[in-house]
Amino acid sequence: MGLALYDTTLRDGSQGEGISLSLDDKLRITKQLDKFGIDFIEGGWPGSNPKDEAYFAAVKNLELKQANVTAFSSTRRPNLKVSADNNILKLVEAGVDYVTIFAKSWDLHVREALQISLTENLAMIADTIEFLTEKGLHVFFDAEHFFDGYLANAEYAIKTIQTAADAGAEVLTLCDTNGGMLPSRLRKIIKTVKSEVTAPLGIHAHNDGNLAVANSLTAFEEGAVQIQGTVGGLGERCGNADLCSVIPTIQLKYETRLLSDKQLKQLKPLYFFVTETANLIPDNNKPYVGKSAFTHKGGIHVSAVRKNPHTYEHIQPELVGNERRVLVSELAGKSNLRYKLQELGFNLADFSDGMIKKLIKRVKSLESKGYQFEGAEASLILLAFREFKGYQSFFEIEDFRTNSINRNNQTYSEAVVKMTVKGKKVHIAAEGDGPVNALDNCFRKALMNFYPEIAKTKLIDYKVRVLNGNDGTAAKVRVLIESSDFEKSWTTVGVSTNIIQASWDALIDSIEYWLLIEESIII
Amino acid sequence: MGLALYDTTLRDGSQGEGISLSLDDKLRITKQLDKFGIDFIEGGWPGSNPKDEAYFAAVKNLELKQANVTAFSSTRRPNLKVSADNNILKLVEAGVDYVTIFAKSWDLHVREALQISLTENLAMIADTIEFLTEKGLHVFFDAEHFFDGYLANAEYAIKTIQTAADAGAEVLTLCDTNGGMLPSRLRKIIKTVKSEVTAPLGIHAHNDGNLAVANSLTAFEEGAVQIQGTVGGLGERCGNADLCSVIPTIQLKYETRLLSDKQLKQLKPLYFFVTETANLIPDNNKPYVGKSAFTHKGGIHVSAVRKNPHTYEHIQPELVGNERRVLVSELAGKSNLRYKLQELGFNLADFSDGMIKKLIKRVKSLESKGYQFEGAEASLILLAFREFKGYQSFFEIEDFRTNSINRNNQTYSEAVVKMTVKGKKVHIAAEGDGPVNALDNCFRKALMNFYPEIAKTKLIDYKVRVLNGNDGTAAKVRVLIESSDFEKSWTTVGVSTNIIQASWDALIDSIEYWLLIEESIII
Repeated sequence: MGLALYDTTLRDGSQGEGISLSLDDKLRITKQLDKFGIDFIEGGWPGSNPKDEAYFAAVKNLELKQANVTAFSSTRRPNLKVSADNNILKLVEAGVDYVTIFAKSWDLHVREALQISLTENLAMIADTIEFLTEKGLHVFFDAEHFFDGYLANAEYAIKTIQTAADAGAEVLTLCDTNGGMLPSRLRKIIKTVKSEVTAPLGIHAHNDGNLAVANSLTAFEEGAVQIQGTVGGLGERCGNADLCSVIPTIQLKYETRLLSDKQLKQLKPLYFFVTETANLIPDNNKPYVGKSAFTHKGGIHVSAVRKNPHTYEHIQPELVGNERRVLVSELAGKSNLRYKLQELGFNLADFSDGMIKKLIKRVKSLESKGYQFEGAEASLILLAFREFKGYQSFFEIEDFRTNSINRNNQTYSEAVVKMTVKGKKVHIAAEGDGPVNALDNCFRKALMNFYPEIAKTKLIDYKVRVLNGNDGTAAKVRVLIESSDFEKSWTTVGVSTNIIQASWDALIDSIEYWLLIEESIII
Repeated sequence: MGLALYDTTLRDGSQGEGISLSLDDKLRITKQLDKFGIDFIEGGWPGSNPKDEAYFAAVKNLELKQANVTAFSSTRRPNLKVSADNNILKLVEAGVDYVTIFAKSWDLHVREALQISLTENLAMIADTIEFLTEKGLHVFFDAEHFFDGYLANAEYAIKTIQTAADAGAEVLTLCDTNGGMLPSRLRKIIKTVKSEVTAPLGIHAHNDGNLAVANSLTAFEEGAVQIQGTVGGLGERCGNADLCSVIPTIQLKYETRLLSDKQLKQLKPLYFFVTETANLIPDNNKPYVGKSAFTHKGGIHVSAVRKNPHTYEHIQPELVGNERRVLVSELAGKSNLRYKLQELGFNLADFSDGMIKKLIKRVKSLESKGYQFEGAEASLILLAFREFKGYQSFFEIEDFRTNSINRNNQTYSEAVVKMTVKGKKVHIAAEGDGPVNALDNCFRKALMNFYPEIAKTKLIDYKVRVLNGNDGTAAKVRVLIESSDFEKSWTTVGVSTNIIQASWDALIDSIEYWLLIEESIII
């Protein structure tokens, strides 16, 4: 049996705090996992809730390229015939070729959590797997708490997996369910297991000790053929092994081919897709796939990376669909800003040393007021334009106001803006879902007559951060606005003690950036 | 030399994207690290910027209990006498007892980044360390890129550290600067190094392969006596080794004492302190210290944990100052909600089975509308009170309105609220930094005559999340408001298509929760 990737984002991953996937979310993620090249997609536990049951009914129509969708379940319940256990019958009805059955390998759990005899637990494993293999299903076995169980009662832990193998399980996946194992101890245990059991082994690691990836790789080094994990390490408590780290490490560092080069390049997009779909905030520092994973800030690093990227990058970011970024910040010197301007599409010949110095001064001054351009490159581009290019704004704002009125627990918001566009006075009003949305609508309505293509653009995210007034000064807010024209997205920033002012500034930048592109001033 | 903890949050940690520490931040973090029990605090690079220079001038006055503050620097520059190198002179002027000198151990870097000869690099190491030890300083040596260097040119890499040891360096810290090493390969290299070099070794690992903690522990197993890392794993790209994982693992799993039990209990508070000070969002899934690290959601887990916490927890959360939490969510059953209510201080005898079912239904219905109670327990408590206790609200709102007006690029916000408190009509207006702040001020002003203690409370954080309208429906916003009375903090939630309405709902909950405590209805 060759090495297989087993994704449990849809099942174990969705146990994470704050994660709730709709049926539609689950189907969309399934398609992406298949396209990416995952071998087994654990879709859910049909017996445990109606959503997962509906998932298995719907997933049949997806026409997947290569992945096998697997259904997950516990063994039959204690003191019940398998054929009378509704969970197991639903598993058969799920209509998949592969099922994964989990059972306890730790005597403590058998006695205290299940409150049954050690023998009945073994019988539950044997009965269930035999029943399912007789139905023609391929069965994988998840030995829950295997390592803790082994340390408590090695003989019994081994008995549970041997029972599963004898009953027909094709892979015995050893689970570090509580996520507390150390790699060196895990290696020793797997070595012993290999000397006693001949069936292929798998690994399912949790990250409570910050070692899920290390434990998974250790098992891989010891010959495990099935590696379970989730996209981005989603999962209960500290999450599961992060497939976004495991996969590129095996392929690029152990040089064991799992995916085509083209598929591996989809790693970062896959991470963002799953994170977005789960409505989570992407982790910028996530290895391989985070926005900052190949981002250079320190001046020394930046100048070395410009000479030879290998000096500060463990792999080429492009291999996993990521990219190199260089930050502008107080820690960086002129070298950074020059690189950044180039990256942003400016011609360096347009900038004298004095202009660069002036721009750095301006960036630093704004940063000290709470601005952050690292996540708002569109605002940085505008800053450079406004400083150096004899830049003419596309419009002039005279004043604006916005009102929100609540009566009978219904809130109504509207805004009024007075501005000049292409020499013409515009005085316009609009409604919206709150004051910022009303201002945004107003603004777009005002520009529509002059730039009709603005209808294509949309505000897609709005983030507010209260900047800590630790030193007793008035609290400021930083607003980040992400906009999209359905081809690309861009982010702008505004800072003020007044949230409306901060939002407005970010809004202006957002529209002005789009206009720069629309008018081909930025290509 | 005994095992030492070496924290570089203030130096390497501050290279992370989006991290900017003020002088005051750095001093406050230093105090906390010292109190926590860190042995060496790398405070900065005095030669590289004025802020770090000011830090060393100020840190002398802190009266630390046990920590040694160390100053960091590169070696002397190429082709320059040590005594003429300003960086090195500033290091001496820093007035510390310990300094850390870094140099390149990778021939590629020497040739391509520094563009000097391999011999000059060795001379820079020797000269610098000799100069500093002659000044009476203890010197640690950071061998940058040691492992990559070893793989490229083992002989030269060893030569760099041997040179440092011969010149008087007390610890040779092997750095995985690019963060790409595998633990099994790192172990082999350290074993070889140990056979050739006798000086004590240290480890400095980065997390680009998601293996920084594993690599640090591997080095510890191989006898490294100095472990460098940062609080929460802050640092450039994917960060440094997370001391919040390394420390409890060594103390609790390797049973090697680093801190007192009392100090270890400060681990989670330390993580939150540093994260807050750096103005970052805490990572809920962070091993040991995250809010979700000991949080149980799946129904099976919850009922097992109630029987015996050891079944799903790798360590006792209290040992690191964390706590067990149980979530209410669609995945959980009655068992969860009962546990939660108990945890929140309710008497379960007050709740019939029917009431629990009704409350679950209400929670599920609100969750499907975008509410999330996991981070807003005060709103959950109010929900239970409002459903079951014949609860009388402390006030009734008739209507409210808020206006923001911008003229000459200045924004002015005010609000008006009409409400009934203790049978009396109140009609009141207030200004604020934006519409929500104006409403908040208005509300507090209205209640002040009736509950003067409200002056103690304050809105400390305000978060807005746009809920994705993936299925084409109107976008909703979820507002989380954190409030504090300087003894405790509590969080409330509001969801609406209108941001003002969502903010208002969270605001009402926040005040009502405080009143419940103030009136001793919640103890």
